[in-house]
Amino acid sequence: MDIESALKIAAEHSEDLADRLRFIYELDQLKSVLRQTQLADGSRRENSAEHSWHLAMTAMTLAPLADPPIDVERAIKILLVHDVVEIDAGDVFIYDDAKRAAVEAEEQVAADRIFGLLPETQAHELRALWDEYEARDTPESRFAYSCDRLQPLLLNLAIGGGSWVEHGVTADRVKDINGKIVWGLPDVWAAAEQMIDQAVADGQLDPGPG
Amino acid sequence: MDIESALKIAAEHSEDLADRLRFIYELDQLKSVLRQTQLADGSRRENSAEHSWHLAMTAMTLAPLADPPIDVERAIKILLVHDVVEIDAGDVFIYDDAKRAAVEAEEQVAADRIFGLLPETQAHELRALWDEYEARDTPESRFAYSCDRLQPLLLNLAIGGGSWVEHGVTADRVKDINGKIVWGLPDVWAAAEQMIDQAVADGQLDPGPG
Repeated sequence: MDIESALKIAAEHSEDLADRLRFIYELDQLKSVLRQTQLADGSRRENSAEHSWHLAMTAMTLAPLADPPIDVERAIKILLVHDVVEIDAGDVFIYDDAKRAAVEAEEQVAADRIFGLLPETQAHELRALWDEYEARDTPESRFAYSCDRLQPLLLNLAIGGGSWVEHGVTADRVKDINGKIVWGLPDVWAAAEQMIDQAVADGQLDPGPG
Repeated sequence: MDIESALKIAAEHSEDLADRLRFIYELDQLKSVLRQTQLADGSRRENSAEHSWHLAMTAMTLAPLADPPIDVERAIKILLVHDVVEIDAGDVFIYDDAKRAAVEAEEQVAADRIFGLLPETQAHELRALWDEYEARDTPESRFAYSCDRLQPLLLNLAIGGGSWVEHGVTADRVKDINGKIVWGLPDVWAAAEQMIDQAVADGQLDPGPG
């Protein structure tokens, strides 16, 4: 028994079921996509699957602080699918502007392929969630983006700067990128900004040219 | 800067925020709880955080096949929190009956401690989701349980038996434990049962005395 044999049996029951199971198998690969961020104990780099779970939980935890208010269930679903394209396109460090721009077309192709594995109605539903995240033009997608900025910030602060220090990212760049936390979680951003300032005061983070 | 310094700054803004961030930090540890199941490519053991993400995605993918029909958003939230207690209690192999019974009280204490980190309203909300999963007395919790049985089954089948073969679990035990997939996904169970039979026919899985 292997994946193809299992899917062949599923297809004897229905093509619809085989398509759904193929998608579930495909998703497994997101567990092997490594991010720059390390776990809060510094033991290893985080992968994009566990990151997505942590974000969904972050959304559930911080939903009462969302401003503007949000439909937390939709924000969770957006966060669950938001990194799926990395199975093909890989994870790009948020501070790498050139690479981020270059990967955009690749991510669109990945979204076509991966969500396209599903039966049509469901493919559209999940693709729409991903498109919404990319557009960041709804309270839910903007809140989701705030969560996606906050979680790595918290992990980096836990180990004195983490991937910021490793890649020479200065505090002004950290604030520039993560300032968008204010979109969905203004009160959380106020505290996070102070944490960044403290990391500079502690000599862990280079303030940058300001 | 470390976790305690970050939370101290958060507490200057509000105790409510500090409690929520402490919970988010606490959750990070679920990424270090290893399960018996391996990834579909057999490269390493799966952890409970990425497993929880995969289950939430499995729920989203298979919701249209749920019988009885379910509120998929609640099923997703149940699955996101269902393993959080393993931060304290660890993951117990589903086929280890003695250990499973022994760990139950420990999981209750873990639920008290971990969900209790949150502000009260939110602590109750997340604890209620976990209690619902444990009771398996709603369509959503039974569907969630079906997903939690199906996903490791699919991973084991991908590598010719995986943790079943490793621990000498026979096909009749596999069917006994995973037969509960029928609770929420009867058509999927029909196909899964045939996959198990095929693994026996292929000589990968011991049929057992059954």
